Amino acid sequence: MITRLSTLFLRTLREDPADAEVPSHRLLVRAGYVRRVAPGIYSWLPLGLRVLRNIEAVVRQEMDAIGGQEILFPALLPREPYQTTGRWTEYGANLFRLHDRKGGDYLLGPTHEELFTLTVKGEYSSYKDYPVILYQVQTKYRDEERPRAGILRGREFLMKDSYSFDLSDEGLARSYQAHREAYIKIFDRLGLRYVIVSAMSGAMGGSASEEFLAEAETGEDTFVRSTESGYAANVEAVITPAPPERPLDGLPPARVLHTPDTPTIDTLVGHLNGAGLGRTFSAADTLKNVMVKTRQPGAQRWELLGVGIPGDREVDMKRLEASLAPAEVALLDDTDFAAHPFLVKGYIGPGSLADNGVRYLVDPRVVVGTAWATGADQADHHVVDLVCGRDFTPDGTVEAAEVWAGDPSPDGAGTLVAARGIEIGHIFQLGRKYTDAFALDALGSDGKPIRITMGCYGVGVSRLVGAVAEQSHDAHGLIWPREVAPADVHVVIAGKDAAIGAAGERLAIELDAAGLRVILDDRPATPGVKFADAELIGVPTILVVGRGLASGVVEVKDRTTGERTEVPVDGVVAHLNELCAK
Amino acid sequence: MITRLSTLFLRTLREDPADAEVPSHRLLVRAGYVRRVAPGIYSWLPLGLRVLRNIEAVVRQEMDAIGGQEILFPALLPREPYQTTGRWTEYGANLFRLHDRKGGDYLLGPTHEELFTLTVKGEYSSYKDYPVILYQVQTKYRDEERPRAGILRGREFLMKDSYSFDLSDEGLARSYQAHREAYIKIFDRLGLRYVIVSAMSGAMGGSASEEFLAEAETGEDTFVRSTESGYAANVEAVITPAPPERPLDGLPPARVLHTPDTPTIDTLVGHLNGAGLGRTFSAADTLKNVMVKTRQPGAQRWELLGVGIPGDREVDMKRLEASLAPAEVALLDDTDFAAHPFLVKGYIGPGSLADNGVRYLVDPRVVVGTAWATGADQADHHVVDLVCGRDFTPDGTVEAAEVWAGDPSPDGAGTLVAARGIEIGHIFQLGRKYTDAFALDALGSDGKPIRITMGCYGVGVSRLVGAVAEQSHDAHGLIWPREVAPADVHVVIAGKDAAIGAAGERLAIELDAAGLRVILDDRPATPGVKFADAELIGVPTILVVGRGLASGVVEVKDRTTGERTEVPVDGVVAHLNELCAK
Repeated sequence: MITRLSTLFLRTLREDPADAEVPSHRLLVRAGYVRRVAPGIYSWLPLGLRVLRNIEAVVRQEMDAIGGQEILFPALLPREPYQTTGRWTEYGANLFRLHDRKGGDYLLGPTHEELFTLTVKGEYSSYKDYPVILYQVQTKYRDEERPRAGILRGREFLMKDSYSFDLSDEGLARSYQAHREAYIKIFDRLGLRYVIVSAMSGAMGGSASEEFLAEAETGEDTFVRSTESGYAANVEAVITPAPPERPLDGLPPARVLHTPDTPTIDTLVGHLNGAGLGRTFSAADTLKNVMVKTRQPGAQRWELLGVGIPGDREVDMKRLEASLAPAEVALLDDTDFAAHPFLVKGYIGPGSLADNGVRYLVDPRVVVGTAWATGADQADHHVVDLVCGRDFTPDGTVEAAEVWAGDPSPDGAGTLVAARGIEIGHIFQLGRKYTDAFALDALGSDGKPIRITMGCYGVGVSRLVGAVAEQSHDAHGLIWPREVAPADVHVVIAGKDAAIGAAGERLAIELDAAGLRVILDDRPATPGVKFADAELIGVPTILVVGRGLASGVVEVKDRTTGERTEVPVDGVVAHLNELCAK
Repeated sequence: MITRLSTLFLRTLREDPADAEVPSHRLLVRAGYVRRVAPGIYSWLPLGLRVLRNIEAVVRQEMDAIGGQEILFPALLPREPYQTTGRWTEYGANLFRLHDRKGGDYLLGPTHEELFTLTVKGEYSSYKDYPVILYQVQTKYRDEERPRAGILRGREFLMKDSYSFDLSDEGLARSYQAHREAYIKIFDRLGLRYVIVSAMSGAMGGSASEEFLAEAETGEDTFVRSTESGYAANVEAVITPAPPERPLDGLPPARVLHTPDTPTIDTLVGHLNGAGLGRTFSAADTLKNVMVKTRQPGAQRWELLGVGIPGDREVDMKRLEASLAPAEVALLDDTDFAAHPFLVKGYIGPGSLADNGVRYLVDPRVVVGTAWATGADQADHHVVDLVCGRDFTPDGTVEAAEVWAGDPSPDGAGTLVAARGIEIGHIFQLGRKYTDAFALDALGSDGKPIRITMGCYGVGVSRLVGAVAEQSHDAHGLIWPREVAPADVHVVIAGKDAAIGAAGERLAIELDAAGLRVILDDRPATPGVKFADAELIGVPTILVVGRGLASGVVEVKDRTTGERTEVPVDGVVAHLNELCAK
C-alpha cells in the first residue's frame, strides 16, 4: 500500500508543543503521531498507530515463539477478585474505580493477575495441563499522580502482560528464563540500547525480578552500572560488598568521651578531631544509628529496629524498604521516642539497643574487627574504638545506606556510575501469592493437590513507541529502526516538473509491488517543506526524485547517517529492495 | 502454525451454561471461545480471539479499500466534549462515568463523534483537506440495563466506528454510499444472511440512515419485510401507503348520534351495528383520536397534538416518536385533560381540536373523501359519516399506527411479514449536529468558511462473532465460514496406533507448510471425544486420520454438510489446499 501525503490524515507542526518535556514527546506530537486528549491520555494518528502495531507484532511473535497463548481480558472488571487479593485497596488512588448503573463496584484493570489466575482455575485441573503461558496485549489504566512525558507515562496505555503457571519452582525458573530470552529478542529487534537490572535485593531471592531499562537521560528510573563490567542494577538491588573481617587482637579498647553539643555527624567529627586523640576522624569512621519501626504484613504491632550505617552516608529509605519487604517501615516519631526513654536522640549506640532487646542491623561494611565512633547512649557522650564483634554484635546486615557513584561494583569489576532509564519490561517470579489467594491447585499424579506457582511479565507496548523515539532522533526529527518504522521508504517528489512527478509515482508503485511499505510525498509543496517533513517523520530511507532525473539518477538518503547516494533510476527499486531486506 | 489441542488453553464443556439464552452464547461458551467475567463483560480465550481478529481483519480491509484511515482514540475520555454536545447527560444511565484522583469527570466512550470532530478540527483547515474518512477498531462501553445473549449485547465490546467529513451534502451522500458498499462486502465475506433496513421514516430524510440486520429469530431488533420484493425496514421506518382520494360528491352528510356508554372502539362499533343504520361498521371504519403533547428541542412549553388513526389499530409510540423526532412526545395526564375541558375523554373529535387551535395529524389512510365514525366532542355522542376534506381538514399525516403482518408493502409488491434480526451495522448521515457543536469549518476557495457535514458508520465487531455463530451452527456445535474460522483444517488423530499418530503429525506439518491454518487433535482422548470436540469447535473441514490409513486413505469431513469423503493419504494435502482456496 502506498501512503500518499496528499491525502494522509497528517499535519506536522513547526512548533514544539508547550507541554512537552522530553524529545520523544515533542517529536511524536510535531510529526503527527499522537495527540493529547487529557492528561496522560492520547490518541494515535495514522503513522503513530502503525508504529504501535509494528511493535505489538514484534512482541506477539516473540511471545508465540516461547509457546505463549494469546487471550484477551476486559478492561472493565468487577471488584470481587481484587478485593480477595487486597489490591482493591492497596492500589490506592492509582486505581480508577467506578460504579455501574446498579451500584456495583468496578475498576479499570491496572494489571490482570487476578483474572488470569481465576481463568486458569476455571479451565485446568490436572497436573497434565501444566505448564502454561498465557498473555494478552491489552489497554490498561493507572491514575498516575503525575502523568508525564507524553506516552512514556500515561494513564491509559497498551501493555503486553503474560503469566506463567507452573507445578514447581524449577518450572517457574524455566518460564522466567524463557521470558527473559524473549524480551532480549524483542528489545534487540526494536534496536534499543537497554540494560537488565536486578529489581530486588539479594535478600528477596536474587534474580526473582529483573527490569529492562531503555537507557535515556530523560528516563524516570535511576540505576547504577559498572564502569567495567556488564553489571547493572536498580539502586534498591545493589548489594554492598563487605570488606574482609579483621583480627580483634591488639585493637585499642573502647573509650567513652564527653562530646558536648555533637548531635550530628559533622559536629561529632569536628569535636573528635579537636580532642587530641592523635589521629584524624572522618565521617566514614563514625557509625550512625537510625531508628525505625517495622510491621510485618498482617501484624498489628510495630517493632523497633536500629539501623547502623557509616556516618558519611544517609539512609536511602527505598533501599531500606526493599531490604525489609514485605514488612512496612516508618521513621520514629516523638511519641515513639517518648515511649522508649533509653533512646537518647543524637547519642544512640548499639549498647542500649542490645540491653533493651531492640533488633539492630548494620551496613555490610560494619564487619567484625572494624572500630567505630558512635553514640554512648547518654546525652553529650560518644564512644570511640567501639569494635564490631568485640564490643557489640549486630543481629545481621541490611542494605540501607545510599549508593554513591564511585562505590565498588558488587561484581568486583570497576566502580558504579549512576544512569537513568525508561522501564520497558519487567519479569517477576511472583510465586504463590495469587494462587494462594484463589487456591489454584492441580491434582497431582498421586491424587494430591499441587499449589501452582506463577510468574508475571510485562512489556509496555505503547511506552516502547516513546522509548524508541527517545533513543532514536536528532535535531531534525525521528529516526525509526526499520522494524518499527511506519514505512520502508519515503519517496519525495522534489520538483513541479511533470516528468519528476510521473517518475515518483512510477517508482512508488514499483516499490510497493516489490513488497516495500511506501510513503509518497505527492503534495504540491516546496521541496524544502517536503525534506523537512521527511526528516521529521523519520522513515529510515528517503528517496528523492528531483532534478537528477534528467541525468537518469535519483538520490537515496539514509535518515540515520545522513549519507546521500546517487543511484541510477533504473536500478533504484532493486537497490532499495536489497537495502530494506537487511 | 499448528495449534495442538494437547497444549491449547481450551476446555470444552459438555453442559450448557446456566445463563445462556441463545444458541450462539451457549456454543461459544461450551466450545471454549469466551468466558463471562461480569454481566455483559467477557474474556476471549485463544480460539475466540482468533475469530474476533479474523472478523476485525475483514472489516479493516474493506475500510481501507474505501480510503478509510485508521486511527485510535482512548476509551477513557474527559467530560468536556460530551458536555458540549449534551450527550454527557443525554446518555443517562447507559454511560459509565467516573472521577479521576483529582475529582475530574471522565466517561468510558460509548461512541466517539465528539473526539473525531475535535481531532479533524485540530488538524484540518482548508477545503483542500476534504473529504476524509477516519475509523478506529476500538473497545466501547455502554452500561446496558439488560446485557444479554453473551457477546451479542455486552457492556464492553469491540466496534469499528468510522466517520466521514465532507464539504457538501453530495459529498456526504458519496461517503455514505461508499460505506454502504463496504458493509455489503464485509457482511458478504462473513457469510451472513442479512437485510438492510431503513432506520428512519421518510419524514426524516429517506435513506439518511440504514441498519444492517443479521437475520436471527433470537435477535432483539424487529423489522418487516415484503413477501415478494426485497423491501425491508424497521417498523419505525414503514411508510403507510395512502389510498387514492375519493370524490366528495354524493357522500351522505355527517350525523351526530347519541351513543351512551361507548368510550371504547369496541363499545362504539357494537352500538353502531345495533343502531339500525342500514350498514355494518367495523373498527376500521372508526377514527380514534389519541391526544399527546410534544415539545421541540430546547423549548420550555409542551404543545397539544391530536393523532387520528383507524380504530382497529393501536398507536405504536416508537413509530410516533420517530415520526415526530426530534420533538419529545408524551401522553396526556389528568392534569392536562383538566386544563383543556374541550377534550371530552372517549369522545374527542376533530371538531373541537380545530375550534381550539390544536394541531391534528392523521394516519395516511385518512385521505380526502374517506368517511369516519368518530367522537362528537360531547359525552356519549359520536358522529358518523364525518368526511375528510369536507367535514374536517387535518394538519397533515403521521406514522403513528401499528404495522401489521399482512399490510401492503410500501413498495407496492406483496405484503409485510414480521422478522427479527441482530443489528450488525449502522450507517447514518449525521449532518452537521457535531460540526455545529464544535464549529468545524473549512476555509473555502473563496475565503469563506464551509461548515463540514458528517456521516457516522458502525460495525459491531465482537457482536459479529455472536451473529455469525447464531446463524451458523447445528445441534452438534459451531460451523464457521472459512473466512472467520479459527483454522482451515481440524486434523483428528483417531486411534492409538503409532502409525496413525505419525501420519496425523506428518499431514499437519504438510498442511501447515502449504499455508493452511491447522488444528491438530493430538490428545490421548478417545476418537468419540475428539469427534465431538471437532464438531463443537466448528472448523469447516475435518480431516480424520484413522483406521483407513491401513488402506491408504483418510477421511475429509465437511462440517457444514456432514459429507464424508475418503481421500488417498498421498493426495489429501493437495485436495485440502484446493478446498480451502475456494
